[in-house]
Amino acid sequence: MSYPDAVSRAQAFRRLHQSEQPLLLPNVWDALSARVFEQAGFAALATSSAAVAWSLGYRDGGELPREELLAAIARITRVVKVPLTADIEDGFGTTPAEVADTVAAVIRAGAVGINLEDGRYDADGRFALRDAAEMRERLQAARAAADAAGVPVFINARTDLFLHGEGPIEARFDETLARARLYLDSGADGVFPIGLTDPVLLARLCAAVPAPVNVAPLPGLPSLAELGPLGVARVSTAIGPVLVTMQALQQAARILHDAGDLSVLKTSLGYPEAQSLFAPR
Amino acid sequence: MSYPDAVSRAQAFRRLHQSEQPLLLPNVWDALSARVFEQAGFAALATSSAAVAWSLGYRDGGELPREELLAAIARITRVVKVPLTADIEDGFGTTPAEVADTVAAVIRAGAVGINLEDGRYDADGRFALRDAAEMRERLQAARAAADAAGVPVFINARTDLFLHGEGPIEARFDETLARARLYLDSGADGVFPIGLTDPVLLARLCAAVPAPVNVAPLPGLPSLAELGPLGVARVSTAIGPVLVTMQALQQAARILHDAGDLSVLKTSLGYPEAQSLFAPR
Repeated sequence: MSYPDAVSRAQAFRRLHQSEQPLLLPNVWDALSARVFEQAGFAALATSSAAVAWSLGYRDGGELPREELLAAIARITRVVKVPLTADIEDGFGTTPAEVADTVAAVIRAGAVGINLEDGRYDADGRFALRDAAEMRERLQAARAAADAAGVPVFINARTDLFLHGEGPIEARFDETLARARLYLDSGADGVFPIGLTDPVLLARLCAAVPAPVNVAPLPGLPSLAELGPLGVARVSTAIGPVLVTMQALQQAARILHDAGDLSVLKTSLGYPEAQSLFAPR
Repeated sequence: MSYPDAVSRAQAFRRLHQSEQPLLLPNVWDALSARVFEQAGFAALATSSAAVAWSLGYRDGGELPREELLAAIARITRVVKVPLTADIEDGFGTTPAEVADTVAAVIRAGAVGINLEDGRYDADGRFALRDAAEMRERLQAARAAADAAGVPVFINARTDLFLHGEGPIEARFDETLARARLYLDSGADGVFPIGLTDPVLLARLCAAVPAPVNVAPLPGLPSLAELGPLGVARVSTAIGPVLVTMQALQQAARILHDAGDLSVLKTSLGYPEAQSLFAPR
């Protein structure tokens, strides 16, 4: 699985959305986590914006500087062969033109897919949902940037409406569906209704939109085996992997600090296994 | 434990070497791992050059670009309050002046201690030990750079002689002791005879050198409780912590890939705990 260029990586990534089984996409944050998942056999990788932010010392939610994200993407794509899709949050821009700049930079950093979301954080860190029409312009700008770069980037449009919305579930579902259709009509290749985990609603959404639907393991999500028959095309791990490592590290740190027991650092893998993940310069 | 400036952080770090108990220094690689150990109560942190290299996509052993190391140090010191000592391998320089440049840059990045080693890797990745006289000049240059910056940096001089040396153990021990004394006379504040784990030899070394001796958990190292009475002042975790996280991640990745079982991502900590590690901008 080696791709000579960004176009073939992007095409391969698109094809992974057309399998019988949902595409399980692990969300990584650095070169080491990326190589661990690639070595485990995953055909594509994603970044988690939260995990990337934490590993670089920032809170999740619009605080990570754009240049730090771009550098993190480049460090990952330097060492993996499989396609990488990047979570670029709201595109790091107040205008569609700035979103386009971000997408162009993300492509230069080696990613062949993006997640672009319609939620944003204001200067006080408060969440707000962009108008659908504004998101439409931002998606169109993202698509134009990908076209200009000549790379068929898979644009996954995330709507935060269902997760952050209020009111009856049926009304939120209808609005989510309307946004999904609009986004697909604006250059998106797939939709990600984060927070939607109910199997009946998921099946309805998947039947109603003619494109891959992405889900994340929030409470209530059916198992991977159940998601395929519902029509789900793509399943992200979200922050699961980084929390697994944080938990393991926190447990070891506490035992080390409180009991001074160095044996908590014993592992069945060692220096050679870690070295073997990376090629010599 | 909050320090107004680099000088007070450096002084606090020096004092930690004078405790009855050895200073247990966890080796971290990014902002997240640093905050996890700081939150567990550790009074100081170190970087592991191997772990930093892996997380950024490079093999250990002279392959990580200097600028990548400096940026990684700065990302860590931005978010921790406790002192950080940086593993700068051989100082990233062929000349003592270049080592001084590195030390000055590491201080600007916020570290108040360094590990400088007398091993190096040639262009083919082969290990070689520098002459003691050459290491002496490099240590003198490092000390001069710290003096010029006005920061009482703790310089930990690592000798790779015992680990990589050949011949009878007694002869290697004598050479290690001679290097330790020379290095302390050249500006080093402590010595790190990596590979020396035998308790009898460790006690002899600690009694023979008038400065903190650092050990790492290689096979044969006594427990933390046994190291204090031997005279050891400082114990590094080395690559233990990064391997703990890599192992946890690899196990989760394999189960996710082979069994498609999302439940392997369930953790007892969640998004709020990770967010709480970092202050809002």
